[in-house]
Amino acid sequence: MSRWVRQHIGQMKGYAPGFQPASGHVTKLNTNENPYAPSTAVLKALSSVDADALRKYPPPLADGFRDVAAQVHGVERANVIATNGGDELLRLVVTTFVEPGRPIGVLDPSYSLYPVLAELHGSPIVSVEMSSDWSIPRDFAERMNDAGASLVMVVNPHAPSGALTEIDALETLASRLNAVLLIDEAYVDFVDPEREHDLVPMIRRFDNVILLRSLSKGYSLAGLRFGYGLAPESLIEPMLTKTRDSYNVDSIAQRLATAALESRADARRSWSLVRAERERVRSGLQALDFDVPPSQSNFVLCTVPGGRQAAEALLSALEREEIFVRHFGAPRIADKLRITIGTPSQNDRLLLAIAQWHRGRSIDS
Amino acid sequence: MSRWVRQHIGQMKGYAPGFQPASGHVTKLNTNENPYAPSTAVLKALSSVDADALRKYPPPLADGFRDVAAQVHGVERANVIATNGGDELLRLVVTTFVEPGRPIGVLDPSYSLYPVLAELHGSPIVSVEMSSDWSIPRDFAERMNDAGASLVMVVNPHAPSGALTEIDALETLASRLNAVLLIDEAYVDFVDPEREHDLVPMIRRFDNVILLRSLSKGYSLAGLRFGYGLAPESLIEPMLTKTRDSYNVDSIAQRLATAALESRADARRSWSLVRAERERVRSGLQALDFDVPPSQSNFVLCTVPGGRQAAEALLSALEREEIFVRHFGAPRIADKLRITIGTPSQNDRLLLAIAQWHRGRSIDS
Repeated sequence: MSRWVRQHIGQMKGYAPGFQPASGHVTKLNTNENPYAPSTAVLKALSSVDADALRKYPPPLADGFRDVAAQVHGVERANVIATNGGDELLRLVVTTFVEPGRPIGVLDPSYSLYPVLAELHGSPIVSVEMSSDWSIPRDFAERMNDAGASLVMVVNPHAPSGALTEIDALETLASRLNAVLLIDEAYVDFVDPEREHDLVPMIRRFDNVILLRSLSKGYSLAGLRFGYGLAPESLIEPMLTKTRDSYNVDSIAQRLATAALESRADARRSWSLVRAERERVRSGLQALDFDVPPSQSNFVLCTVPGGRQAAEALLSALEREEIFVRHFGAPRIADKLRITIGTPSQNDRLLLAIAQWHRGRSIDS
Repeated sequence: MSRWVRQHIGQMKGYAPGFQPASGHVTKLNTNENPYAPSTAVLKALSSVDADALRKYPPPLADGFRDVAAQVHGVERANVIATNGGDELLRLVVTTFVEPGRPIGVLDPSYSLYPVLAELHGSPIVSVEMSSDWSIPRDFAERMNDAGASLVMVVNPHAPSGALTEIDALETLASRLNAVLLIDEAYVDFVDPEREHDLVPMIRRFDNVILLRSLSKGYSLAGLRFGYGLAPESLIEPMLTKTRDSYNVDSIAQRLATAALESRADARRSWSLVRAERERVRSGLQALDFDVPPSQSNFVLCTVPGGRQAAEALLSALEREEIFVRHFGAPRIADKLRITIGTPSQNDRLLLAIAQWHRGRSIDS
């Protein structure tokens, strides 16, 4: 390690993103991309980008996008910040609201970037285990307050389980916490519309709540790196005017993201297709004796019968068929695979490959 | 201020970017954009971006770009990091190499973002005044070491003066400093080729040197937000694998930046045009009694005869003609304007407007 590197950074491990195969011909169900193309309005916006838009600096605050997002969510421009992917918002929240050394609270398991950001910042992570039904434990706020957490990050729908925590439970959490509450809604677009799940009113009722949105999954724009935050102006303002890199979101991304929100009907169709396939994949896996909790996201977390070794064996068997899914080493989920919902034909291929592997094992034993 | 915001952040002032007029019909000479279009290869790369590139996550390390940059500069891929604008690299350098509270060294005046990044990080800024001829004072390294600086940031060619510090002076500085030396080469593409100014060999000779490159000015891509760092692998590696946001550079930006480096001949033509105009603008201003030091950049810093009040009056007079240039309030440069070199017709308009203002003043007095 170079003598110039800060010691705790030299010693830490970075975030490990999911494998990104170079070939486009594989069945890629490992990083929760939307299997459908972005809306035609986005592609049209792309073709309208001209030399002058590239040559000049972008609108520094992305006000055009912020206005459209404000309209979509029924809030004001001042309640919106555009970021270079949701990951930038996570970093900004840590930088803006947490003194280094003050704890950051998370649920375990959840998005593995949270502890990496805490470690980078020089803050201890305080982690509470999710209940066995993937709900948030009732004493979570109390334990966070006792630990002195300045910031609590909760992903909802939960990753990697797909479980949705309802609004009333989150409101209780927000009101009890003596900390900023970041609710990471990266997957919220895939929630069943009948549940009428909308957390946006929370940002008017609580001075400590920030909602993270991402265009990566819901809008099929993972390649674009575009996320945004919704929060009371008092929390948006310091991120927007102080901690954010000036010109954090480029001109092309601003235009395409604006077009994406303006053409939500297209994206909504993809959400509905994903939801239908999610239930089919779940049933298919259950028929093969996999335990699969209900998911409100664009993935399912399934327990492979036979424990960790079986999960790793299945992972390898699928890789041999060029089907990529995600396995995490952490104790509680080591016997599980997280599978992104693909197109019907991708899901067929997946279910067939798992059925064959399952049959092979039954014969072996 | 919200009670949730870290105190020093609540109290600080953020970075103030140059004014970005919404209308495209003004003469915009205030933020050092290149007046010529990016290369046709870049526009071709833009039109080749398809739905699938948007839908999927980008190559996480931007290896395709890194390979091309390595080839251009005669280094290895491991010596290159791609960033979301040069500004991201500046932030990464601070995060990776400076313990909060340890001083960061700069020259005064220089890029006004440096002290903002230091303040955000919770580090004092140690600043040394540039010599009257805009060279780096001889005792700069000693003063930085005495102050205990962990990181020193130097912009070269210097902004806002345009002065170039030669390689041997920078090598002496690097060898004497007990700190990481970030040399911000945002404007290096506009240096006269006869000077054969190439700092890249320094990254092989010094374990503490990082070069910042930007596509904003030289490649007419300010709207794209793309910069990169060149450094020994021991300094690149912790930024690449630990402190950088995962997926910091989007798929479109990676493709366009790669195309830009691959078609450098086009960009080089713009550099040559800018250099020729730079000398013409300088002569034109000198003919009006403005003091204008030689510039190796795509702007000139001119002293307005009559001091600060005259500089501010001229700024306003130009704004009334919809000509935008940059004025900084800092004491040493308050009587000066920084003027970006535009196209010949933009420069004509500028010189004419200044001549008229000058004539009006002579008549008044």
